[in-house]
Amino acid sequence: MPSTIGKLTALLTMMHDHAMGADIVRKLEADGYRHTVGKVGSMDSAKVIAAIETAAKNNRVIDEKRYRETHGLYHAILEALQGVSRGTPQIRDVLRTVGLTFAIVRGPMSTEQDQPDEGEWICVCMYGTIGAPKKGFEHEVLGFGINHI
Amino acid sequence: MPSTIGKLTALLTMMHDHAMGADIVRKLEADGYRHTVGKVGSMDSAKVIAAIETAAKNNRVIDEKRYRETHGLYHAILEALQGVSRGTPQIRDVLRTVGLTFAIVRGPMSTEQDQPDEGEWICVCMYGTIGAPKKGFEHEVLGFGINHI
Amino acid sequence: MPSTIGKLTALLTMMHDHAMGADIVRKLEADGYRHTVGKVGSMDSAKVIAAIETAAKNNRVIDEKRYRETHGLYHAILEALQGVSRGTPQIRDVLRTVGLTFAIVRGPMSTEQDQPDEGEWICVCMYGTIGAPKKGFEHEVLGFGINHI
Amino acid sequence: MPSTIGKLTALLTMMHDHAMGADIVRKLEADGYRHTVGKVGSMDSAKVIAAIETAAKNNRVIDEKRYRETHGLYHAILEALQGVSRGTPQIRDVLRTVGLTFAIVRGPMSTEQDQPDEGEWICVCMYGTIGAPKKGFEHEVLGFGINHI
Amino acid sequence: MPSTIGKLTALLTMMHDHAMGADIVRKLEADGYRHTVGKVGSMDSAKVIAAIETAAKNNRVIDEKRYRETHGLYHAILEALQGVSRGTPQIRDVLRTVGLTFAIVRGPMSTEQDQPDEGEWICVCMYGTIGAPKKGFEHEVLGFGINHI
Amino acid sequence: MPSTIGKLTALLTMMHDHAMGADIVRKLEADGYRHTVGKVGSMDSAKVIAAIETAAKNNRVIDEKRYRETHGLYHAILEALQGVSRGTPQIRDVLRTVGLTFAIVRGPMSTEQDQPDEGEWICVCMYGTIGAPKKGFEHEVLGFGINHI
Repeated sequence: MPSTIGKLTALLTMMHDHAMGADIVRKLEADGYRHTVGKVGSMDSAKVIAAIETAAKNNRVIDEKRYRETHGLYHAILEALQGVSRGTPQIRDVLRTVGLTFAIVRGPMSTEQDQPDEGEWICVCMYGTIGAPKKGFEHEVLGFGINHI
Repeated sequence: MPSTIGKLTALLTMMHDHAMGADIVRKLEADGYRHTVGKVGSMDSAKVIAAIETAAKNNRVIDEKRYRETHGLYHAILEALQGVSRGTPQIRDVLRTVGLTFAIVRGPMSTEQDQPDEGEWICVCMYGTIGAPKKGFEHEVLGFGINHI
Repeated sequence: MPSTIGKLTALLTMMHDHAMGADIVRKLEADGYRHTVGKVGSMDSAKVIAAIETAAKNNRVIDEKRYRETHGLYHAILEALQGVSRGTPQIRDVLRTVGLTFAIVRGPMSTEQDQPDEGEWICVCMYGTIGAPKKGFEHEVLGFGINHI
Repeated sequence: MPSTIGKLTALLTMMHDHAMGADIVRKLEADGYRHTVGKVGSMDSAKVIAAIETAAKNNRVIDEKRYRETHGLYHAILEALQGVSRGTPQIRDVLRTVGLTFAIVRGPMSTEQDQPDEGEWICVCMYGTIGAPKKGFEHEVLGFGINHI
Repeated sequence: MPSTIGKLTALLTMMHDHAMGADIVRKLEADGYRHTVGKVGSMDSAKVIAAIETAAKNNRVIDEKRYRETHGLYHAILEALQGVSRGTPQIRDVLRTVGLTFAIVRGPMSTEQDQPDEGEWICVCMYGTIGAPKKGFEHEVLGFGINHI
Repeated sequence: MPSTIGKLTALLTMMHDHAMGADIVRKLEADGYRHTVGKVGSMDSAKVIAAIETAAKNNRVIDEKRYRETHGLYHAILEALQGVSRGTPQIRDVLRTVGLTFAIVRGPMSTEQDQPDEGEWICVCMYGTIGAPKKGFEHEVLGFGINHI
């Protein structure tokens, strides 16, 4: 089982409905990480961002009353979205649509290293499909972002 | 076990030295996929691209005599690198360095679907760290690209 | 008369209503290239992409049932659009409008070279005007993309 | 008191409602610069551009009948907007909103140097906030562009 | 024969060694346009820019003593380079090399319209190949930029 | 006197050698902000970043032993550099050079508001010139970035 926040987030995103997903959740819970998994499908990049922010707030991965936490999460989302769109986060404007599963994980960079000074980080991963707005005319996509929080 | 080229490539990149990695390799071999895993660390984005192209050629994932295969791989690499650099593929110019494991997988989009007309695709995933050229001053990174070949 | 797919596509785009355009069409037909010319004017980048995709499908430049052909064309369009917008493919968001003639040509890279292994490529060129949504407040623009298909 | 068009524009943008702002306006008037200050708040990047263009025309900073002046101003605005959005000029598409004060100044590069051959330049500065569409969930932002006119 | 600066520049770039090239040069000379054609091959984007600036100065397309003319040309070159690189003007950093023919033309927007108020514009076009630093592993490329001067 | 970290940083950058600069420093000191001002001139974007990071560490604006502080500063620098380069942080690759004064300020978002939960932010501003590597062939430039720390 991996021990870093990034790998755990990426594996959770892709394997959340496999046995491995349950193992990862147990590990995250045991080590005090906050986390959530969700889905969003849209041609509107703003809706993708909003869905992830809402999931993070509703599941208390971030404190919705603190702007600095929203700011930290926002930039992690934007970085993941740059991986999904490979460049500028444009979806509808370039005639694409996405169907994504995402995971958000918050806690130390590693479950093993003891770096109390380095505090918490937040990691966002998105996995799914991108393509023309026509069934089957799409391929897989994966985006990943991380930020201090 | 997942059945799509993208998920298999991403999991192979992150889990190649776990039991899961061996399972994925067995599945890829059984289903006729070409594949390879390698490592590269550099401040020079051109070296990262060259390392992946060389690994693909040496391990016969692509036919090095056909430009169209190099062209297909090149754009998949560039897309993965955009995820790693979150935007423009710059490393040294923005005072960063990367240490990456990569996997390259070539074959049908899925091991299950029967879409002979859709031919082969090539998928590149990179996982590792990006950060200041100073030990420990780095965080995880993940990039992913896919193209028809 | 030029012999490469890119130059033929660019000249066809700009000279389709001159004598040279007819010569190019004859050459393309004689050498077995698939091709079409069309026009689109919009502030919506997605509409520009859709118009070119539709023209390619209706004129059988690509097989609309194969996703890999749509994928190959899509990235050629996007590259041409980056030339038109000089950077990110934004039109309305940066208060511009475009009036474009486009050509799409599919076949070998050259009418002269004998490279059967290199298969077919698809080339998209767009020529027209970009500017403020006000008559005469615009200048010429030219974009070009090419991809293996 | 600074003597260059860029510093005067930036200071005017940020200090227009302080005593310093009045001093800058007096200096600009004495030295024959055309100038204006305005405000715009929007999630729509096109509206930000339109507001600045309209202010420039209404206050005769540019001659609205000459496309080349609109073109010169447009690119200065776009550059300033890239500073505001830090990269691609996207606002709503990445779920942000802006509230901006802007200044536009036109004249020689410096009030001191005697470079009659270098003609006139136009400078655009924007200062304000960018953030989530929720009161207080925003931080300051500053963008700056300059062009020959 | 076309009558706009952009089309004339693009055709001159691609057809300068055909009969059409000589016709364009005659038309440009008759109508008082300044112009030049040159070649540059490099992995270094700065060398491409420098070669075009030098050609423009040596052939008096711009007055090398006036910064505003260099500034106007520079941005036209950068826009053309964005078409060549399809996005960020990177060449070596993404392991590519270019071999380009370029033309630079300066004068009114059109040989036919009578718009004395709109003054002069400068247009830069680049045509050639981009690809891996290996003979034959390249495809055609076309970039275009225009600016008021 | 302004009361927000962004405006104070921008004014300090531009007015550090005027009377206003001394006033700002007094205010920053009185309110417990950490700050520094420095200069850097280079064609190398990595050197610009390194100079600002070094100044921040040497003047204890950030704790050089904590990666999360370096990470927070790094992204603020990168955002400011995007304003300076108007897009991708490229300098030498697009044949430019910069001469910059920068300020770095760390503390609460405002000297007036009482938002203890929102913690500290770091703001980076750069002001100077960008242009061809030839004396006088340059114009002013201004970049600005802010991040939670």
